[in-house]
Amino acid sequence: MTDEAHEEFTKPWDQLTAIVESGDAEKLSDYLKSLPPGEPARALSRMSKDEQAGVLETLPETDAADLLTELPGEQAAQLVEELPVEEAAVIVGEIESHAQVELLARIDHQEAVAILDHMEPDEAENVRALAAFPRDTAGGLMITEYVAYPEDARVEEVLDDLRTHSEKYARYDIQYAYVVSVEDHLVGVLRLRDLLLASLAASIRSIMIEDPIAVPAATGLEDLQRLFGRHAFYGIPVIGEDRELVGVVRRSDMERAAEQQANRALLKFTGIVGGEELRSMPFLLRSRRRLSWLSINVLLNVLAASVIAWYQDTLAAVITLAVFLPIISDMSGCSGNQAVAVSMRELVLGLIKPREHFRVLWKEATLGLLNGLVLGAVLGGVAFLWKENVALSLVVGVALAINTVLSVCLGGTIPLLLRRANQDPALASGPILTTLTDMCGFFLVLSIAQAAMPWLAGY
Amino acid sequence: MTDEAHEEFTKPWDQLTAIVESGDAEKLSDYLKSLPPGEPARALSRMSKDEQAGVLETLPETDAADLLTELPGEQAAQLVEELPVEEAAVIVGEIESHAQVELLARIDHQEAVAILDHMEPDEAENVRALAAFPRDTAGGLMITEYVAYPEDARVEEVLDDLRTHSEKYARYDIQYAYVVSVEDHLVGVLRLRDLLLASLAASIRSIMIEDPIAVPAATGLEDLQRLFGRHAFYGIPVIGEDRELVGVVRRSDMERAAEQQANRALLKFTGIVGGEELRSMPFLLRSRRRLSWLSINVLLNVLAASVIAWYQDTLAAVITLAVFLPIISDMSGCSGNQAVAVSMRELVLGLIKPREHFRVLWKEATLGLLNGLVLGAVLGGVAFLWKENVALSLVVGVALAINTVLSVCLGGTIPLLLRRANQDPALASGPILTTLTDMCGFFLVLSIAQAAMPWLAGY
Repeated sequence: MTDEAHEEFTKPWDQLTAIVESGDAEKLSDYLKSLPPGEPARALSRMSKDEQAGVLETLPETDAADLLTELPGEQAAQLVEELPVEEAAVIVGEIESHAQVELLARIDHQEAVAILDHMEPDEAENVRALAAFPRDTAGGLMITEYVAYPEDARVEEVLDDLRTHSEKYARYDIQYAYVVSVEDHLVGVLRLRDLLLASLAASIRSIMIEDPIAVPAATGLEDLQRLFGRHAFYGIPVIGEDRELVGVVRRSDMERAAEQQANRALLKFTGIVGGEELRSMPFLLRSRRRLSWLSINVLLNVLAASVIAWYQDTLAAVITLAVFLPIISDMSGCSGNQAVAVSMRELVLGLIKPREHFRVLWKEATLGLLNGLVLGAVLGGVAFLWKENVALSLVVGVALAINTVLSVCLGGTIPLLLRRANQDPALASGPILTTLTDMCGFFLVLSIAQAAMPWLAGY
Repeated sequence: MTDEAHEEFTKPWDQLTAIVESGDAEKLSDYLKSLPPGEPARALSRMSKDEQAGVLETLPETDAADLLTELPGEQAAQLVEELPVEEAAVIVGEIESHAQVELLARIDHQEAVAILDHMEPDEAENVRALAAFPRDTAGGLMITEYVAYPEDARVEEVLDDLRTHSEKYARYDIQYAYVVSVEDHLVGVLRLRDLLLASLAASIRSIMIEDPIAVPAATGLEDLQRLFGRHAFYGIPVIGEDRELVGVVRRSDMERAAEQQANRALLKFTGIVGGEELRSMPFLLRSRRRLSWLSINVLLNVLAASVIAWYQDTLAAVITLAVFLPIISDMSGCSGNQAVAVSMRELVLGLIKPREHFRVLWKEATLGLLNGLVLGAVLGGVAFLWKENVALSLVVGVALAINTVLSVCLGGTIPLLLRRANQDPALASGPILTTLTDMCGFFLVLSIAQAAMPWLAGY
């Protein structure tokens, strides 16, 4: 309570609104910089759309651009959509090319086109070219702000150029300089450190790293992760079809993309379609996205539960079984999801190929047998303590044991099969798994019970 | 089938074993380097422990160290445990300090102590000091390989030092040099670029960035993420209690740690205790870890299902309800998990504070109302198509609608409450959520049915 009471006096969103109303750009900028990291994003998410747009419009352009890049992607996109196109174009123009592409990809297409039309033609052209590369490829992740020199340049010339354009390059994130042939082919990489230590008269060809590792623009995120994992590079040059230099993928951008991918997978696995939802997003969009997943699940659930309907007479004779059906369903889901998660992880780490389902099947079947026996014994034991009927506890224990083996086998292999079929394991594994294991679980409990009816009836 | 047949001839693990038997270190090193990224890890995971140890023992030490750092952490740790202590100490000695700490933290404590005893005393001392910092703090993530100069040094002296020790520094990952006072306090940061462009006679004090941002060793991962998100730094200096420089956290290490944390959260959320499992881990360890989660779940499930037992008579009178109980249970779990995932994400992004549960409650309750109405209508519709009984479809539809509201409200707030109580939301949210929503769901279906019994009996 004291925390909340305290916040009443210091709500940063109220302060922001007040400063925007006063129109004092400098004060606004200072106040935002005084907030702890992350707090501007939270504060904006508490303000109305107009108030948020007011903050961006009041701020100096570069500060507005900095603020935008600090926000979560979805939040930044919503904000830009609220701005007048001219204002948006000016602010977006201040952002790094690579972040421009990411931001514009998230906003409404027509709005994005309008913003590009209001930007400087060169810059807009660059963004359009970058946007053509798919997300999570070298082309989609690369920056185009790099420095390249012809191979016959001398160290002194390079240092002169760096010094002359230091203002321009200050915006760049220079860790390496690249060396290109007359045909613009990438022939070498210069480390700043080597440039620092070399004699001024030396040719850069003599100190460059020759035959540098470079990747085509279509290289996927997983391959990039492994390359960076293997080499202590800060950036890897990206080349076009003729080995011409087109950009640089930085380690930090690759790692951020990988983190985002892992997060999207987590969210998809729990039924967040698209891998993204913030509570500041429009109500109907959130509802529709969640429902698109839930409505498939409700139909699959009906399908699975229809197995119970076939055995209605068995269930009527032994009504106690109705208590155990949801338990079997939920436990099989838990066991199977563990196996799904391990398979997804091993796929990401490259420890397993999609075609190696027999290996996974063997590993999971043996584990499932042991865990199934333990869980079956626990549930059978609980059933016995409750009803003191050996047959009943055998029915539910054996059914859970068998279904545990089935669900870990299915859980382990479904992601591999989905990946082989070029489907996204994160989104589809869960519903497929639970539908199959529910059907099998209900069938096992009820069919075994039917066979054991003479010892069960009346419970 | 052709894929698998093809692999018979080229299994890299068989090749590795053959080369190890021949004892040809150079051939082994060349062969490993010829494999595509990630493939060495997969190949080793297919070999026996002795064979894996043979690979490391045959390789030149630096190559063995490179291989270790390329493997997933758990796999590297298992491998080191298989080596004789002397060999392990030599190979571990070749790894970067920060990776040494990470590796040794994963292996058996006594084994780790023995390895440290066989390492060079200085290096072992450094590792012990680093290991004292908790994981995912600035102290735990920092490297101690950095260069620092006194504030009265001149540019020329710094360049001379860099040149003289270029061999030693080649192992370092230098992006900045640090400037310290006579008391060893951090007073500035030198960018390599500025060093490059300055006149040789200049004092480094004149070109350094003054009052640089620095963090105490106890700074957590989330604060580091926000700092790096806000500033385009490659590394942030870490300071001790007296503002003395103790290390540097690099952006890449912070991002890797964040990615690992997101992955651990994903795995914990699906019931992988500890956030880590590879199928190459010992069978009993995998079984025990999975069971520790499942056995809690089976007991919570029994608790939830006991609600059904109270209403046994109602159920016996309307046996059809038994078909809908698992559906209600599963659907409420799905809806609730979506809300859990969004809350976990917003907590990580800092968009929500743990105490703001009323805001979440409001956002989720309104969404749950809409989604509950839609899902209730779907399930009620299915029930009507099947049994053509309006009362039955109202019972299941209304129960699902109400329970959807409850489960999204619980799902949204449970992670916040757990975080407030300093518990891990990833591990505990799921079981708590499903137990509560199952109990409520069963209670709703069966108590509403009991009230509507006159219109239901016999279905």
